[in-house]
Amino acid sequence: MAKVGIIMGSKSDLPIMQEAADILDYLGVEYEMDIVSAHRTPEKMFEYGKNAHTRGIKTIIAGAGGAAHLPGMTASLTPLPVIGVPIKSRNSIDGWDSVLSILQMPGGIPVATVALDGAKNAGILAAKIVAVNEPKLMDRLVEYIGELKEKVIESAKDM
Amino acid sequence: MAKVGIIMGSKSDLPIMQEAADILDYLGVEYEMDIVSAHRTPEKMFEYGKNAHTRGIKTIIAGAGGAAHLPGMTASLTPLPVIGVPIKSRNSIDGWDSVLSILQMPGGIPVATVALDGAKNAGILAAKIVAVNEPKLMDRLVEYIGELKEKVIESAKDM
Amino acid sequence: MAKVGIIMGSKSDLPIMQEAADILDYLGVEYEMDIVSAHRTPEKMFEYGKNAHTRGIKTIIAGAGGAAHLPGMTASLTPLPVIGVPIKSRNSIDGWDSVLSILQMPGGIPVATVALDGAKNAGILAAKIVAVNEPKLMDRLVEYIGELKEKVIESAKDM
Amino acid sequence: MAKVGIIMGSKSDLPIMQEAADILDYLGVEYEMDIVSAHRTPEKMFEYGKNAHTRGIKTIIAGAGGAAHLPGMTASLTPLPVIGVPIKSRNSIDGWDSVLSILQMPGGIPVATVALDGAKNAGILAAKIVAVNEPKLMDRLVEYIGELKEKVIESAKDM
Amino acid sequence: MAKVGIIMGSKSDLPIMQEAADILDYLGVEYEMDIVSAHRTPEKMFEYGKNAHTRGIKTIIAGAGGAAHLPGMTASLTPLPVIGVPIKSRNSIDGWDSVLSILQMPGGIPVATVALDGAKNAGILAAKIVAVNEPKLMDRLVEYIGELKEKVIESAKDM
Amino acid sequence: MAKVGIIMGSKSDLPIMQEAADILDYLGVEYEMDIVSAHRTPEKMFEYGKNAHTRGIKTIIAGAGGAAHLPGMTASLTPLPVIGVPIKSRNSIDGWDSVLSILQMPGGIPVATVALDGAKNAGILAAKIVAVNEPKLMDRLVEYIGELKEKVIESAKDM
Amino acid sequence: MAKVGIIMGSKSDLPIMQEAADILDYLGVEYEMDIVSAHRTPEKMFEYGKNAHTRGIKTIIAGAGGAAHLPGMTASLTPLPVIGVPIKSRNSIDGWDSVLSILQMPGGIPVATVALDGAKNAGILAAKIVAVNEPKLMDRLVEYIGELKEKVIESAKDM
Amino acid sequence: MAKVGIIMGSKSDLPIMQEAADILDYLGVEYEMDIVSAHRTPEKMFEYGKNAHTRGIKTIIAGAGGAAHLPGMTASLTPLPVIGVPIKSRNSIDGWDSVLSILQMPGGIPVATVALDGAKNAGILAAKIVAVNEPKLMDRLVEYIGELKEKVIESAKDM
Repeated sequence: MAKVGIIMGSKSDLPIMQEAADILDYLGVEYEMDIVSAHRTPEKMFEYGKNAHTRGIKTIIAGAGGAAHLPGMTASLTPLPVIGVPIKSRNSIDGWDSVLSILQMPGGIPVATVALDGAKNAGILAAKIVAVNEPKLMDRLVEYIGELKEKVIESAKDM
Repeated sequence: MAKVGIIMGSKSDLPIMQEAADILDYLGVEYEMDIVSAHRTPEKMFEYGKNAHTRGIKTIIAGAGGAAHLPGMTASLTPLPVIGVPIKSRNSIDGWDSVLSILQMPGGIPVATVALDGAKNAGILAAKIVAVNEPKLMDRLVEYIGELKEKVIESAKDM
Repeated sequence: MAKVGIIMGSKSDLPIMQEAADILDYLGVEYEMDIVSAHRTPEKMFEYGKNAHTRGIKTIIAGAGGAAHLPGMTASLTPLPVIGVPIKSRNSIDGWDSVLSILQMPGGIPVATVALDGAKNAGILAAKIVAVNEPKLMDRLVEYIGELKEKVIESAKDM
Repeated sequence: MAKVGIIMGSKSDLPIMQEAADILDYLGVEYEMDIVSAHRTPEKMFEYGKNAHTRGIKTIIAGAGGAAHLPGMTASLTPLPVIGVPIKSRNSIDGWDSVLSILQMPGGIPVATVALDGAKNAGILAAKIVAVNEPKLMDRLVEYIGELKEKVIESAKDM
Repeated sequence: MAKVGIIMGSKSDLPIMQEAADILDYLGVEYEMDIVSAHRTPEKMFEYGKNAHTRGIKTIIAGAGGAAHLPGMTASLTPLPVIGVPIKSRNSIDGWDSVLSILQMPGGIPVATVALDGAKNAGILAAKIVAVNEPKLMDRLVEYIGELKEKVIESAKDM
Repeated sequence: MAKVGIIMGSKSDLPIMQEAADILDYLGVEYEMDIVSAHRTPEKMFEYGKNAHTRGIKTIIAGAGGAAHLPGMTASLTPLPVIGVPIKSRNSIDGWDSVLSILQMPGGIPVATVALDGAKNAGILAAKIVAVNEPKLMDRLVEYIGELKEKVIESAKDM
Repeated sequence: MAKVGIIMGSKSDLPIMQEAADILDYLGVEYEMDIVSAHRTPEKMFEYGKNAHTRGIKTIIAGAGGAAHLPGMTASLTPLPVIGVPIKSRNSIDGWDSVLSILQMPGGIPVATVALDGAKNAGILAAKIVAVNEPKLMDRLVEYIGELKEKVIESAKDM
Repeated sequence: MAKVGIIMGSKSDLPIMQEAADILDYLGVEYEMDIVSAHRTPEKMFEYGKNAHTRGIKTIIAGAGGAAHLPGMTASLTPLPVIGVPIKSRNSIDGWDSVLSILQMPGGIPVATVALDGAKNAGILAAKIVAVNEPKLMDRLVEYIGELKEKVIESAKDM
């Protein structure tokens, strides 16, 4: 059963958002993936936001570009932590629009914002949240931190 | 019967948004005013957006600050033109957050954005939209353009 | 007879501005299109702005790049609502110049600004303004909102 | 026993960071609070980051201003989710420095960034993370969402 | 007879623009001063721009804030060099709007832009332009450069 | 004899700066061109700045990128009007560095700044300055304004 | 004999630049202080830059605001390391102008830039440079790092 | 024995950081090069920072992109001057993130920041620091300043 819900505003966001799915696969965390547009399918977003926590979802990753309202609107509908991925879409003003539309939420409705196009980190953050009560996953994350270190050490060998 | 609906995300936006009401009063256009928060009262926003055009409203002015989702979300729910007023709220990053969250809407869902804290201009724009089919109001607007000119001419007299 | 006037500062803006014409065609709204430069043909701009509303035009879409003065200057000359399209021209500083030159109009002279290169949304906004008193066009817009939703639902099927 | 660890780079960050503590108090989540400077007490930061999850801490809130390295460095040391609060410190360049230093983390090391000076939202986000496996706290959060709504409805009454 | 024409979009710009007048007084260059609004008195602007060079004016200083169109529009109407002063008006987005609206003129229509609120420098630049064919004024400017140096030398004495 | 001096910080700026030369050729204004680096040939810059007005030069166009000091330093050395061209060089932060390094001069030392990479406009501005006392060149500039208009009118014909 | 030369473009920069002097006093490093304006006393700047290393100066701290040319120009004249302090002067565009004018130096002429108004850090950096060959001063700096830590530890005691 | 330590956060930074090594080679200054990631190998960074000055290193060049913590963290661990190179990495927001994460260090912990991707200048700055007590290297640097001049003079010949 999916523990992480990955949603995005448009299919064109998939190449970026796939990185969240890939790292969750790698870390062994189950997820589901869907397209939910704040502006084009507001009813679907409402239903998704209202019900996710009743379906066993532990955290939601929402990616969107431009005037990106999906992460913040979803966060207003669910008691779950929502992770926002600002996407540098076509016509974006250098990504500032998606970053600020997601980050600068008013008091009461937080969105856990990651870096521009940072879907991989969103996946890791989701895993960290799920791991809070799953000791095995937390061990896996400690291991992952070790893997990151190894890769750097390795890459430094032929300097 | 109100022709313009003025909504804002928080009562703290009222001092700015009142300027829209004042100029509509001055131009003789009826309006209504309410507080509708995209993040705190999403259901109220849904209802407002879905029904406004059936109640005789011709255009909606929506003001919000920070990660401002009210204008864009409302625009996604109504066939009416929605005018967005970016408000420079406390903790805003110099107003850029509200400007970009309102302006940079994706294809399909326009918001007619005015200047930062530009509620007065939102009111005039609403009047211009209502006037499209009300010749008397259009005459009033031509007159208003004349008044603006007169004030400048007057102010230049004692230079 | 044209209900929407589309003007742009230079023929190089046409690839962007054509998107406004295309969506108006799709929604069944008549328009006219012309090149009017604030800086190179100020007299033509004056005449255009002064007379548009007497020729049956209901709203004007004006696109320009860099220090973009066409939308604001036109707005100062007409009682009609003017929609401004900031265009990211060659040598633009990431589009900020056209966005701010169009958005930040002084009190009294609003421009309904849409997203950077957002001509399609300008066309939809124009249709929404025309529809304020044309029930059939408003129905068409409600239908269009439904089409947007369908496309998202469809695209989500093969996730 | 504390479930949330709140740390900040300097005592001058306390007025902002206190808002995280206050909302956790209000929501009934236990926390601890400390001053840990990435640049002035790097060893203390190391120890804090390495051991927090072994002491029962579920998530860490780290606030810092300027070139803000505390949230990201802490995130590199712990398997726990780290929430970063960008603080607009004296001499900050409008808060951009703290926002970008916290948000733009490299792949592998996410920080859940909230709005500039958004410590209250950091507290709520921490509660949402803790609630992932505490049904009572999740009910409390659903209730809190209701309280936010009530306040808006109430404030709209005398419009 | 005035050699420099100083115009501004609004009387509220006078405290800044007065600095241009003051330095021209100090350097002994005759000027005239008027309020000409691109958006509120476009006809007056047209006349001013079209005729200035026939009245003996050698260069025009135009100051405006926000979406500042006066310098650029005036430059499009006159063969004279136009100096633009971006003014940080109320509601300005940190002055970026006026700077970019004046600076980023399209090919063919230059505006000689000075620093934000830099009316004093606009006055000196106007004097330098007038001096191109007035050897005495050029001597005065060489002298002025010397005065600037003296003041620095003097201020360094008590270090 | 050259009336306009065109200088640039590096030969890599030539493709941009050539546009200033080309338009001066077109308008019939004599110029000279040289490479003068504020940072690499400060002595040459000193000599150039100190002597230009004694050699019959009427105005100097200085182009530079990044932390662009050539226009401002030259302006501090000469009583002539100096026109600054911000160049978007390799490693530039989107051109902001050159724009701000040239535009934001302190009181006393103006630089007439044109748009990013706006060397053509720098050439026209130089011609306008030279024309202040050359009626024939001013007629040529009035003609040029007409040519700009004709091109737009022409381009609009096949709309 | 002074080992660090502190210069600034204007006496109005003294309140900021004094912090460099104060920390050098505290660390026991001798310095001299002067006002040297790139734009108003270019000859003095030339002399200062050309001769500093022959007078026993080991490093130069140069502070300036706006289009800040003093640090970069000085760096072009001396083989010594030059530390640049961007100062947020009156009329500065939020400090970006001084930061970028100092930081973005072209290849060949580095300036060691510190934070906006970061004169204290400039002083410490100067001490670190002098200490490279003075073991006692390096010990003092190690001690200073310890003092910073102590203050944080102390301030955390009453949390 | 190496006098300059060059470190970078990731092997992908090597193409930029190699320019620091190349210019040190050219100027005859010995260096070492390593990959040290603040976030992935924090222990290695600790050791590097703590011990560099005991191994004869005189100054450290640290390059990193995005939320770049390596230069600032290293600076907090060593009494040596640390030179920071902001790198415009993939997903960077135009380089602003690395620039501000490195530049805006808090009081007490300076980083000598150079231009975006300015590794060559970092190398020259390192040489200038080493030269403070090596007269021969200082002569080499004076010579290098001469070489820069010669290249400009040469390039100007065929203008």
